[in-house]
Amino acid sequence: MNKEIWFKNETTNPTGSFKDRGSSVEITKALELGATRLVCATTGNMGASVAAYSARAKLSVKIFIPSDTPRHKLMQISVHGAKIIKTKDYTTASASAERLAKTGYYYLAGDYPYRGEGQKSIGFEIADQFHFKLPDAIVMPIGNGTLMWAVYKALHELSIVGLIQRIPKLIGVQAAGCAPIVHAFEAGIDGIHEPIKPVKPRTIASAIEVGNPIDGPKALTAINRTGGFALAVSDREILAARNLLGREGIYAESGGAAATAGLIAAMKNPKFAKQLNEAKEIVVLVTGHGLKG
Amino acid sequence: MNKEIWFKNETTNPTGSFKDRGSSVEITKALELGATRLVCATTGNMGASVAAYSARAKLSVKIFIPSDTPRHKLMQISVHGAKIIKTKDYTTASASAERLAKTGYYYLAGDYPYRGEGQKSIGFEIADQFHFKLPDAIVMPIGNGTLMWAVYKALHELSIVGLIQRIPKLIGVQAAGCAPIVHAFEAGIDGIHEPIKPVKPRTIASAIEVGNPIDGPKALTAINRTGGFALAVSDREILAARNLLGREGIYAESGGAAATAGLIAAMKNPKFAKQLNEAKEIVVLVTGHGLKG
Repeated sequence: MNKEIWFKNETTNPTGSFKDRGSSVEITKALELGATRLVCATTGNMGASVAAYSARAKLSVKIFIPSDTPRHKLMQISVHGAKIIKTKDYTTASASAERLAKTGYYYLAGDYPYRGEGQKSIGFEIADQFHFKLPDAIVMPIGNGTLMWAVYKALHELSIVGLIQRIPKLIGVQAAGCAPIVHAFEAGIDGIHEPIKPVKPRTIASAIEVGNPIDGPKALTAINRTGGFALAVSDREILAARNLLGREGIYAESGGAAATAGLIAAMKNPKFAKQLNEAKEIVVLVTGHGLKG
Repeated sequence: MNKEIWFKNETTNPTGSFKDRGSSVEITKALELGATRLVCATTGNMGASVAAYSARAKLSVKIFIPSDTPRHKLMQISVHGAKIIKTKDYTTASASAERLAKTGYYYLAGDYPYRGEGQKSIGFEIADQFHFKLPDAIVMPIGNGTLMWAVYKALHELSIVGLIQRIPKLIGVQAAGCAPIVHAFEAGIDGIHEPIKPVKPRTIASAIEVGNPIDGPKALTAINRTGGFALAVSDREILAARNLLGREGIYAESGGAAATAGLIAAMKNPKFAKQLNEAKEIVVLVTGHGLKG
């Protein structure tokens, strides 16, 4: 069946990634709660976004970030005045940020509930832009799983109040070198009754290089409840998708092109293609700008 | 007198700079005229924008670009599928593009009139966003001068039809190492009766590193007719302005921060500060994203 593929282009947010939607709510909330100092772990995009919005709010920020993060992302964070502390990997960064927050002197920014409330606007906008007749599937990358959960929560809320009749299949894409949620999905693990096994990540898609996803259980719940699926793509497939998007006029970073790579891979794989047989309209999220490196 | 400073943030355009406004009109026009091949000279941003919009329109593109252009800008252009030809500097790039266009096989994209019609939307938007009660001054960087002319043309047209009562002072900023229009302004040369003297450019602000501006005479006309002025800023002042914008939450490339540097320098210089004495509201254009390098 012929399909219409729509790209939801998140590359034109102020700091170049979808993270700004969450930062707008999270930093507003931090201000309301009287915070003056923030701490945040990041693979790069979250840190740039938190640093930019905190600069505007005149809050001081400490960023924990893997030492192999692209130089361009470090520069972006530091121009916004945040203090950068390099760590071995994202898992270490995350643990360091949470430890500092526990001293009581820092507001912990990152993939936590207030941010999710901001990210929900992607789901609301898709509903709005499709005039509340939703597409059949939405494909997105998974890092911490917060985006997937937020889109699900937004659509679930719209369905509760009767504004939409059904929720699209939610399809999650990870890099083959960092696919803890895909492994869990394939093994039938839901992360709640049986934990998701962390992995040691290795992929060029640094934006989704999260070996131990905070919101993994929630992302799995969203995928399972909507009859979606999770699949992994190779770095080579991600780069090919990035070039393909470029030829359509959209410049995505590797992590930002992962969902596109995932849809292409799914259509070639009979197991997944079958589940998309009846799909007429599919939305693919492009989450970060190619200039991010 | 206390002043309100507004930043018009052009960094969130699809390819990260204000050029997209012009490309949208120019590439549409190229399609309408039946072009299949385009050629374009660029310091980087124009090329990325033309390449992206042409990719979407399925047109093939050749880009002439100075060999010292930041690597990130070259990558952006090539992901959009354009062919890159490196040249000594922008003046050479410009001459090569025009020579190729004269063969009759290529549509010449760049700082030409159709593009100017697209760039006019910045002027229209400022009028719209100020509810047709315009600010006292608009500060912008000058490369080829096309932007300055386009903003003037937009506001002039609005004044002809009576939608606005007066046109703000237009203030042009160049890097001290590449300031042919500032020199001409100071010498009272208008570019029409007496030519603007080209310079050999040397500045970190590569986006405005144009030694022989195509629309220099038009930019000078816009400045003189609105009672504005032109001034040069050092690379050091540009970098300081870039950091200052970062602390406000906006990440600009060097050329994109030049107008901010110019306003700061103007306020410190009695000659210019006097001309802004009565100004209550000033708009400053931030023309390109910091991720551009």
